[in-house]
Amino acid sequence: MSFIPIPENSDFPLENLPYGIFSTADKPQQRIGVAIGEHILDLHAVAHLFNGPELKNNQNVFKESTLNSFMGLGPKAWSEARKTLQDLLSTGNKTLENDTDALVMQSEATMHLPAKIGDYTDFYSSIIHASNVGEMFRGKDNALMPNWKHLPVGYHGRSSSIVISGTPIRRPIGQTRPNDAEPPVFDKCKLLDFELETAFFVGKSNPLGSPVPVAEAEDHIFGMVLMNDWSARDIQKWEYVPLGPFLAKNFGTTISPWVVTMEALEPFKVPNYPQDPEPFPYLKHADDYNFDINLEVSIKPGDSEKEAVVCRSNFKYMYWTMKQQLAHHTITGCNLQPGDLLGSGTISGPTTDAFGSMLELSWRGTRPVELGDGVTRKFIQDEDEVTIKGYCVRDGLRIGFGKCTGKVLPALPV
Amino acid sequence: MSFIPIPENSDFPLENLPYGIFSTADKPQQRIGVAIGEHILDLHAVAHLFNGPELKNNQNVFKESTLNSFMGLGPKAWSEARKTLQDLLSTGNKTLENDTDALVMQSEATMHLPAKIGDYTDFYSSIIHASNVGEMFRGKDNALMPNWKHLPVGYHGRSSSIVISGTPIRRPIGQTRPNDAEPPVFDKCKLLDFELETAFFVGKSNPLGSPVPVAEAEDHIFGMVLMNDWSARDIQKWEYVPLGPFLAKNFGTTISPWVVTMEALEPFKVPNYPQDPEPFPYLKHADDYNFDINLEVSIKPGDSEKEAVVCRSNFKYMYWTMKQQLAHHTITGCNLQPGDLLGSGTISGPTTDAFGSMLELSWRGTRPVELGDGVTRKFIQDEDEVTIKGYCVRDGLRIGFGKCTGKVLPALPV
Ligand SMILES: [Ca+2]
Ligand SMILES: [Ca+2]
Ligand SMILES: [Mg+2]
Ligand SMILES: [Mg+2]
Ligand code: NI
Repeated sequence: MSFIPIPENSDFPLENLPYGIFSTADKPQQRIGVAIGEHILDLHAVAHLFNGPELKNNQNVFKESTLNSFMGLGPKAWSEARKTLQDLLSTGNKTLENDTDALVMQSEATMHLPAKIGDYTDFYSSIIHASNVGEMFRGKDNALMPNWKHLPVGYHGRSSSIVISGTPIRRPIGQTRPNDAEPPVFDKCKLLDFELETAFFVGKSNPLGSPVPVAEAEDHIFGMVLMNDWSARDIQKWEYVPLGPFLAKNFGTTISPWVVTMEALEPFKVPNYPQDPEPFPYLKHADDYNFDINLEVSIKPGDSEKEAVVCRSNFKYMYWTMKQQLAHHTITGCNLQPGDLLGSGTISGPTTDAFGSMLELSWRGTRPVELGDGVTRKFIQDEDEVTIKGYCVRDGLRIGFGKCTGKVLPALPV
Repeated sequence: MSFIPIPENSDFPLENLPYGIFSTADKPQQRIGVAIGEHILDLHAVAHLFNGPELKNNQNVFKESTLNSFMGLGPKAWSEARKTLQDLLSTGNKTLENDTDALVMQSEATMHLPAKIGDYTDFYSSIIHASNVGEMFRGKDNALMPNWKHLPVGYHGRSSSIVISGTPIRRPIGQTRPNDAEPPVFDKCKLLDFELETAFFVGKSNPLGSPVPVAEAEDHIFGMVLMNDWSARDIQKWEYVPLGPFLAKNFGTTISPWVVTMEALEPFKVPNYPQDPEPFPYLKHADDYNFDINLEVSIKPGDSEKEAVVCRSNFKYMYWTMKQQLAHHTITGCNLQPGDLLGSGTISGPTTDAFGSMLELSWRGTRPVELGDGVTRKFIQDEDEVTIKGYCVRDGLRIGFGKCTGKVLPALPV
């Protein structure tokens, strides 16, 4: 129990304590905070209270304007910080109860990117999503590519255009080829989509040339956020052969502001997705590293006050685990650094209302998606606000991610 | 003329003045320098001498440990810096002639990455290279993909593993599928390759959502380096469908240390490569922005003292210009930042000895490449040192890039 009131169904009880970067009107300095109920505990202000063996000589990490240095310290430090925070925020501990200067209302804070993201990678690890997309473009019999079940397919994304929840996204313009018999055209994107994803931040780094064994991968995984990998399907279709998506994905990627730690997610572990064929030893781990995280996407049209849920999915449908993604990413020797972001890929569930993109929900635009009141969507329209939410529930404990939201602005004139 | 002796055939006359980051044994601080003959002028030490209107209030950019801030100032500042440096280093100017503390021998310096590279993109803009690769894998009639002549195909690369010339590269291990009728295998890379490329550093940034018009693209291009985009062909072949190269390219990318400015390259402008079909207006510029830069690649086996030139190519064979690459990269609104690196793609010339990779030189391993003394190569072997050189010559003026070199270490045990 915390002395700070936690509203019912809050995403941020004492058992969560996600990290983020915030500023306030009266103090524009960007600083590290921890969400608790409707408050933020300002870690810059209480850095001197981290006095355990791992952190007493590293208190400066809490005075930085990003989480990178704290992420880089590794799991012993993360665990110690969590214990210190749970202690400080518990009923009966007077240290902070008498020093409310370090507590800020979330409603009065502006959130910023949690880390300086050096490199961003996006995977493609949901088997239902990969099968759906494959079926649409290559037919049911060739839905999954031959490599898909042997390795977690992924690609390098654009880190500069990752933005924090709430940042508007401008509909892109670019080249598409709507008709294969005609030359390409230059126009605004007509098939704008979201992708329901999660992503994890890398904690400890590994040096170039030194793969991270899958058994040690957990030490390099700091925590998770929600992610909307905005996608221009028409631009993607024309540009992506043979080197993969480029402009179709680099105009903006939205993440939620609060990084939920792997320790907070521990109670929601569920069995890994069954893998057949058996993966190579460098990808194999016996322990469970899958998580029961409810995910949902809603759309709020610009002229409406009502958001309509269009997708209810779950992280547990992931075929490849985050440990496997990380081990694979480094197997050739690639160096990961604190603050790097690794996306899950679109997470689709088994039913048609659990698909994680409009491409799948509208099945390539052939099935309008109902928003209620007779309003439908095949893809995302201007002024639509797309919101992803995520939360875990078990035995009365709820751990949430907050939300990841973004509104689409009309394209620039072409 | 400079008061500093410039050896005959030096890459670094007074007309070049490329920027780099160096340190010395007696002063390990990484600082900005300019190459002149066999020397480096330490800009940290002479920052106070930049007194023109653009730089007098920005002298601190020369005291940083990367070029990012200077790159971000834009072309007026770059031009003024060049004039100031040419003046300071000219015969008759006593300011530095009497203060040789600011001059360091290149042989006594260690070079570092010129910039903190936020994002790295690699294009695929040499028509001969794209045609060669296409012909090998899809036959002569389908060599170029339908999109290739409409847009500069490119993809996001891995910035954390970009290393400075001289850094050893470890042969990667990973998944390949040597035989399509058999399951994949886990082994060391057997088809390790170089890619002869150049790359340019982004100068001025553009905000997210604001494309850079092609007419203004030049203001965002700071200067060029040589680049070896090391490639694991067997890993690439198995992993790259459908999202593009990933691990096959992220184990190391080597760049040369000296950034040659676009002003220094001005005298070597040549007509653009003829483009048919005509590109869309957002990609069209009438002025020449192609450059006559001789490029060569040599291999020195580990047990030899002799390096053998295996490729002589030229930057002028590029189909798409750097202005077109930059305008295309930003057309959907992607923000570029000072210090971002944009690679050309492998630059192959029209003759079989001008191909920019072993894949092409050995035509998929079917034609051994002679290194002399009966030694041959199809791909790169352990302990081979691969060196790229680049230089321009016209009317007695030689502007060079120095070299981009890396030695291959044996793979870790599998
Ligand atoms: Ca995605
Ligand atoms: Ca390349
Ligand atoms: Mg994205
Ligand atoms: Mg590379
Ligand atoms: Ni302070």
